[in-house]
This record gives sequence, structure tokens and C-alpha cells, in this order.
Amino acid sequence: MSARFYSLLLAFLLAAPGAFSETLKLPDNLTGFSSPSGESFLVESTAKEAYFPLASNFLTQKTQAYCGVASIVMVLNALNVPAPSVPEYEPYKTFTQDNVLNERTEAILPRQVLDKQGMTLDQIGAILSTQPIKAEVRHASDTSLEQFRTQASSFLAKPGHFVIVNYLRKAIGQEKGGHISPLAAYDEKADRFLILDVARYKYPPVWVTTADLFGAMNTVDSDNENKTRGYVLISSPLGD
Amino acid sequence: MSARFYSLLLAFLLAAPGAFSETLKLPDNLTGFSSPSGESFLVESTAKEAYFPLASNFLTQKTQAYCGVASIVMVLNALNVPAPSVPEYEPYKTFTQDNVLNERTEAILPRQVLDKQGMTLDQIGAILSTQPIKAEVRHASDTSLEQFRTQASSFLAKPGHFVIVNYLRKAIGQEKGGHISPLAAYDEKADRFLILDVARYKYPPVWVTTADLFGAMNTVDSDNENKTRGYVLISSPLGD
Repeated sequence: MSARFYSLLLAFLLAAPGAFSETLKLPDNLTGFSSPSGESFLVESTAKEAYFPLASNFLTQKTQAYCGVASIVMVLNALNVPAPSVPEYEPYKTFTQDNVLNERTEAILPRQVLDKQGMTLDQIGAILSTQPIKAEVRHASDTSLEQFRTQASSFLAKPGHFVIVNYLRKAIGQEKGGHISPLAAYDEKADRFLILDVARYKYPPVWVTTADLFGAMNTVDSDNENKTRGYVLISSPLGD
Repeated sequence: MSARFYSLLLAFLLAAPGAFSETLKLPDNLTGFSSPSGESFLVESTAKEAYFPLASNFLTQKTQAYCGVASIVMVLNALNVPAPSVPEYEPYKTFTQDNVLNERTEAILPRQVLDKQGMTLDQIGAILSTQPIKAEVRHASDTSLEQFRTQASSFLAKPGHFVIVNYLRKAIGQEKGGHISPLAAYDEKADRFLILDVARYKYPPVWVTTADLFGAMNTVDSDNENKTRGYVLISSPLGD
């Protein structure tokens, strides 16, 4: 073994304490997707129809402001909404974080604002509504923990139904501001939802309790006229 | 409902027969990840430790020649190998299809050649070996279906162990040339491996029988001195 090998190995060990994670450490209230408990939550979940098409389209937000854009792209590809073309993939088509933005989304949220402050809950709903799908915005203050649990878990259990959440990271013990990602599954036994976090350079997917997630959505967003954060229920107009 | 809504709905229906799929139709020998059988194969699989970290890092190849690059990035991130920085994600670090290529990989496979003809099995092994991990290349002609089944399934069952396959798409009924992607799980009951196909604009993840996959690896690659395709067994030097 060369000195280079050992120096690399040493760098590896020093850089990666614990589970060799490059992502941030999870607080105790969150369960990582790749942990033994995280794995069993997925297996035992009976509300995971959303999981399979979303996992097939899981991606990393392109910039630190693009959590909303990445979440929308994942859901549109998971719903198989007819997609625009991409020069690199001709003749195949898919939604990307570049081609999903157009003149219609520009009128809802100018790219200049998006690049600086990201997207609000109402903007997610409005941008999704430029596509041939149903998108219903629910502010946490207009609903309840019980309603959220029932609606979100029933959506995740049905093919062609998806949920995007907008929550405050620090309220669930993460670093730290407002964030957006899709939910993929609900495990009734643990009363936890699986967030497929699009900031993959920062956190792995996590299982969060319904109470913690609802609390983190039930926070005020100063970029959205001080309305609370919340969730968007999304489905194909052919479904239901 | 506006005329625009109905015209979009009509476009949606016309563009999306069957399961509204934008990806290519799968031949009968392959089982889609998001199908009822595909879902149960994952649940019943007992060799799926590789699945969770890989699914957390699943991505789309950047160009049609980048299947090897995307597969390598997924495995390095899944292994939590200390990653280079990315301007957009500061202070967080992660491997991407841009930053994984450097002077050391350029010496193995010049980017100009990569952009034109992709990567061979031996180049995957050599590029992975520039990182502090173990990568063992197995050409199909030097092994057997039984050996592949045993080695690959045992790797997929152990944390920190991964398998990348290099196979001929048309041998499993897909369009059409040589391709590279990571394996994520093995279901013993179905005797099928799960390929997390990085050409996500083209095909969903599929469950393929061991015999079909081995046959597709046991094909000659004219870009690799007419050696057969095959697989790479990858692990952390701290494991085993």
C-alpha cells in the first residue's frame, strides 16, 4: 500500500466521523432513510404508492434557492406529464430544472426573485397549475394536524397522487430556513412521513413525525405576506 | 374549464397512452420498479442494503455518453467518499458529473473520447480507483452466471458495498447500445436484480433476471479491445 493510499484513508477517516457522512448530522427526532429503522419504515408503510415514481425521479436542487423548482420537476416527471425536450437527450423528453421555467412561470415568479429568495407555498401551487394537473394549496393555519395526516397519507397511498411540503427546517432541528421537498410515504405505525429532501448535498431523506412536520409547516413565511407554510396536494386531472 | 384546459388534457391523453409513460415501453422480460410486481420485489428482497444509499443519490446521466460518469457519482456519494466542493452548494460538498472528472481521470479517459463514446468496463474500474475505495473489475467471460449471482447479491446485501454493471441494452430487449448503471438490490425469489438506470429520460428502473443480465454483460465491446462487458464490485477499504 502506498503512502498516498494511507494518506487518503486517513483523510477519509478524519473527514467522515460516525457513519462516514458528508451530510449534516440528523437530530434525534429524525430518522435517516438509510438507517435500520428508516429501512423498516419503508417496508412496513402501506401508504407508499408515491414513493416508487418519486424515487425514480429523485434529484438534487440545482442551487440553494431551487428546492421548489426541483420538487416540482420530480412531481411532474413522476406524474408523467408530457415534458419539453432537452437538447442533450434528443429524441427523449423530460422535465429539468432548466426547462420547467418559462414565460408562464416568469409571470408568477420572476427568475430574478426566485434566484434570490426561492419560492413560496402559493407560488408552488401557481407554477404547478401551469401544467395539466390539479394542485391544491393548504396553508397549515387553515387546516389541522389531523386533517393533514389524513389528506397527505391518503394521497401517498394512491397512484398518481403527490404531496409537496413547505416547512421551516429549524422547527424540526435542521439547518435552518424555509424549505420545500416532496413527501413520498407515510408509515402509520411510526406516525412518520418520508421527506425526499432535494438538498441532497446537505441532508439525506428523513422520516419525520406528523406532529413535528405539521409544526414546521405551521410557521410564518415573511416572503409570503406572513401566511403560514403548508402543503400542496397534487393529482392528475384524470385521477380521483 | 377553459378550452386551454381541455386542449392540454387532450394533448396529455394523446401523448401518453398506457400508463401515461413518457419513457420507452418495457419488453415483457423486464419488470418496472413502479409496477405492482416491481414494488413487491423490493419489499421481499433481502439483499437491498445498497438500495437505500443509492436511491438517496439516484440521478440522470448528464448527456447520452455519461452513463458511466453518473453511475460513478452515485456510488461515490452513496459510499460517502469525501467529496469536492461545488460553487452552488458552498459550504456543502458532493460529487457531481462535473467535478468527478479531473486530471487523473483525464489521463485514464480523455474527456474528448468520453464525450464521443462513453466509458468501458475497465475505465470504470480505473476511474473508481482514483478514489480511496476498492474497485474490482469482472469481465463476464472470466466468470459465470452462478459466480455473478453469488458475488453481486452478497455485495448488495452488505452496507458499504456496491455493484456497477456494463451491459448491452438490446440483449435485454431495450434500445439499444452498451450501457452502464448501478445495481441496487437482488430479489432471490424472483431471481432478479434491480438496475437503477441512469438514463431516466429513457427508461425507468427495472428488475431483470440474473440470466438476462448476465447474457447482456457477456457481449463483446468493440471499444474495449473486444473484451466482454461485465461488472465492477466496489467497497470501502474499511469494509470486509
